[in-house]
Amino acid sequence: MPQLGLLPGRAWAALLGQLLRPPRVVCLGAAHSHSQVAEAVLASQLKPRQEKSNFILKTPKEMLAEKYGEDSGLIYDLKDQGGELLSLRYDLTVPFARYMAMNKLKKMKRYHVGKVWRRESPTIAQGRYREFCQCDFDIAGDFDPMIPDAECLKIICEILTGLQLGDFLIKVNDRRILDGMFAICGVPESKFRAICSSIDKLDKISWKDVRHEMVTEKGLAPEVADRIGDYVQCHGLPGGLSLVEQMFQDPRLSQSKQALEGLGDLKLLFEYLTLFGIAEKICFDLSLARGLDYYTGVIYEAVLLQTPAPAEEEPLNVGSVAAGGRYDGLVGMFNPKGHKVPCVGLSIGVERIFSIVEQRMKTFGEKIRTTETQVFVATPQKNFLQERLKLIAELWDAGIKAELLYKNNPKLLTQLHYCENMGIPLVVIIGEQELKEGVIKLRSVATREEVAIKRENIVAEIQKRLFES
Amino acid sequence: MPQLGLLPGRAWAALLGQLLRPPRVVCLGAAHSHSQVAEAVLASQLKPRQEKSNFILKTPKEMLAEKYGEDSGLIYDLKDQGGELLSLRYDLTVPFARYMAMNKLKKMKRYHVGKVWRRESPTIAQGRYREFCQCDFDIAGDFDPMIPDAECLKIICEILTGLQLGDFLIKVNDRRILDGMFAICGVPESKFRAICSSIDKLDKISWKDVRHEMVTEKGLAPEVADRIGDYVQCHGLPGGLSLVEQMFQDPRLSQSKQALEGLGDLKLLFEYLTLFGIAEKICFDLSLARGLDYYTGVIYEAVLLQTPAPAEEEPLNVGSVAAGGRYDGLVGMFNPKGHKVPCVGLSIGVERIFSIVEQRMKTFGEKIRTTETQVFVATPQKNFLQERLKLIAELWDAGIKAELLYKNNPKLLTQLHYCENMGIPLVVIIGEQELKEGVIKLRSVATREEVAIKRENIVAEIQKRLFES
Repeated sequence: MPQLGLLPGRAWAALLGQLLRPPRVVCLGAAHSHSQVAEAVLASQLKPRQEKSNFILKTPKEMLAEKYGEDSGLIYDLKDQGGELLSLRYDLTVPFARYMAMNKLKKMKRYHVGKVWRRESPTIAQGRYREFCQCDFDIAGDFDPMIPDAECLKIICEILTGLQLGDFLIKVNDRRILDGMFAICGVPESKFRAICSSIDKLDKISWKDVRHEMVTEKGLAPEVADRIGDYVQCHGLPGGLSLVEQMFQDPRLSQSKQALEGLGDLKLLFEYLTLFGIAEKICFDLSLARGLDYYTGVIYEAVLLQTPAPAEEEPLNVGSVAAGGRYDGLVGMFNPKGHKVPCVGLSIGVERIFSIVEQRMKTFGEKIRTTETQVFVATPQKNFLQERLKLIAELWDAGIKAELLYKNNPKLLTQLHYCENMGIPLVVIIGEQELKEGVIKLRSVATREEVAIKRENIVAEIQKRLFES
Repeated sequence: MPQLGLLPGRAWAALLGQLLRPPRVVCLGAAHSHSQVAEAVLASQLKPRQEKSNFILKTPKEMLAEKYGEDSGLIYDLKDQGGELLSLRYDLTVPFARYMAMNKLKKMKRYHVGKVWRRESPTIAQGRYREFCQCDFDIAGDFDPMIPDAECLKIICEILTGLQLGDFLIKVNDRRILDGMFAICGVPESKFRAICSSIDKLDKISWKDVRHEMVTEKGLAPEVADRIGDYVQCHGLPGGLSLVEQMFQDPRLSQSKQALEGLGDLKLLFEYLTLFGIAEKICFDLSLARGLDYYTGVIYEAVLLQTPAPAEEEPLNVGSVAAGGRYDGLVGMFNPKGHKVPCVGLSIGVERIFSIVEQRMKTFGEKIRTTETQVFVATPQKNFLQERLKLIAELWDAGIKAELLYKNNPKLLTQLHYCENMGIPLVVIIGEQELKEGVIKLRSVATREEVAIKRENIVAEIQKRLFES
């Protein structure tokens, strides 16, 4: 049984290797999140050490408020015994920004997996949950333009490729281009974020409906909406700079200073993406807006082009599996003096990826190992528990992942079947014969070959086999 | 800079390797906890899929109630918008038991790291927090006696040894022995758990004070208290069965059927601990009681015998760093039909271990690497960002952990200092000269030796060096 085809080496690969094991498997925990990117609000209540720097956070609602735009309604509120209002964190980004500010950190590069909560009306078909798990990666700090941004996109590509989720595309846009576009189309600045949220729906509903929302609900003049329509219906080709160039030439858009800044950065970004060998996975898309308020620059969203599905089944509609962007203002909002720390990051929807991987396993009859056990300690005889325990302790002490059945007298067949079901590659067998001869039988589960190894050499032999495999 | 001296191989070793990195480091998240051992209560509110099997959990308070004895006052309560009472999980054990029951699982072996909340009045000196991180390992299922229990103790020994926390001792006792002892001393059964909580304080306050509490607060007759005193002041020697044997012979205690069961299991346990080579780390201690209500059999608690402290500083008073026991009734409490799943497990206090490791680092001037970066990509020249990006992408694509400075033109000295500070072992250097000759300079940070490697061989050479180191 193969493990998932994850690239080795990068920390997220190991991480997602963990993520992708079925729920019964051991999981690594948010070991540091309490000190690193703790619950946005609870931490401020609970951490005595931090009270000094906490005054901003004393009214937790304010902390989550005005960060999420129209999504704010989804913030999951609670009330603690003291009657102070608390909320469960809506994402990992705002708590990360708060942590940076509270600890006066100027730069950090980290990833974090944790749960977030949203008051959705959950319909699993849409892959929406009220409690779900996000995996975030962020690079905070004042660096030269687009280098960390390009790395974020490289990481998304590595993850989606490594997880074999099928073909994907990453849409890229820039908030400054959108704002410039809104300005030259005649959107009042007060409506910029609201119109962003409308445009963000273009991947779910038609332009006609979005236009209707902008005009009727958000009070945009029809001709303004139509001007926006001309732009947001422009999609660049993957890897291509042609649309960027076209927008540079656009007589109206080129009037906007901030739009030009955004376009300039996109051009630089695509240069770096080409060096990273991923440009053909990325396309400039003026209709990408992202709902959240806190983005200030480049934004991106990865969508799967098709998900494998059994002939008889509907393909999963999972929407975007990863998204993110640059948020240069968020940390400053938590800093008493307003000191800014530019940030760029990405979020991966873990459940969505699970559902795709699970469906793929169903489709292709794949099986993923649910344990890391390397060696199983077995015996053909009764009353050999003591020898099994002595042997497994030797393996454990040598750092070998080993297990046995917690039974005094298990049947050999039961033990071997267990190894086949669990995909354990090696079995060490000790019985009267082996004990007498001072050997251990080493069995390969796949080939069923057995060889007798001197007891004193068994650890070395196992390590050799594990290294070769 | 050495990584911590953790044994390789076992999953918890990797886990604790993660735990022990300073907070700025990437951390692996509770990827599966939402589906595995989610917040005791919130999950029941938030998971629509599970509502069917949720009816028991519809009154969350009841779920956490009557599990923690006198500690129940520490449960951190909240109130959600709907007005339904919620609590933050007090530990990872009750949520795990609930998960087993809700999903009708008969066995599971897993570890989990996550935050728990308690309404302590926090004083960092005591190492008590209101929000802290626990690492739990549990074996659930109906197995032959004491085999999983012995593995739990083996794991505690491996962890504490691997983390080099200094000499430690694991006290072991059994709830059935305590209850038998209470019975023959004349404690009314209704007072068993309350007296347990009093005895549990013996590691913090004197027998005199505990006796006073039992008599005045818990209404125990003085002579009953004194009889208990005779027992709880008996401590066995590490590895020794003598106290167990002595209790077998005890004219009064040997009257108690359940005490004899407990003593019999302890005898078996010590046999297995000897096979695991850890018996000398374990001692039978009749004063070990554990506060929590849910334990039904063997209980244990690991204490450090001394913590390294700088001459001028107070040694940390961290109390127990790991503890646990057998809780055979808890899962049944969440099962509509009361079906039981025997469980044994352990909890490790992550912050306490951090504070010890941090103090050790201070004491011995140790430094722990805060990143896993294997190779740094540097250049001596200006305007070499493109070549650095192309090169680092090659390394990333080969699964090598690499980083560079996010600057267009960093100074070479800055780049090399960064590697020394971060403990990055290798540097690849690309400049005009190298580009012309089609080579990459490979530098060992420790020895400062540099060799020129053909560009096409650089990945292989790095992988060779990393494997050898």
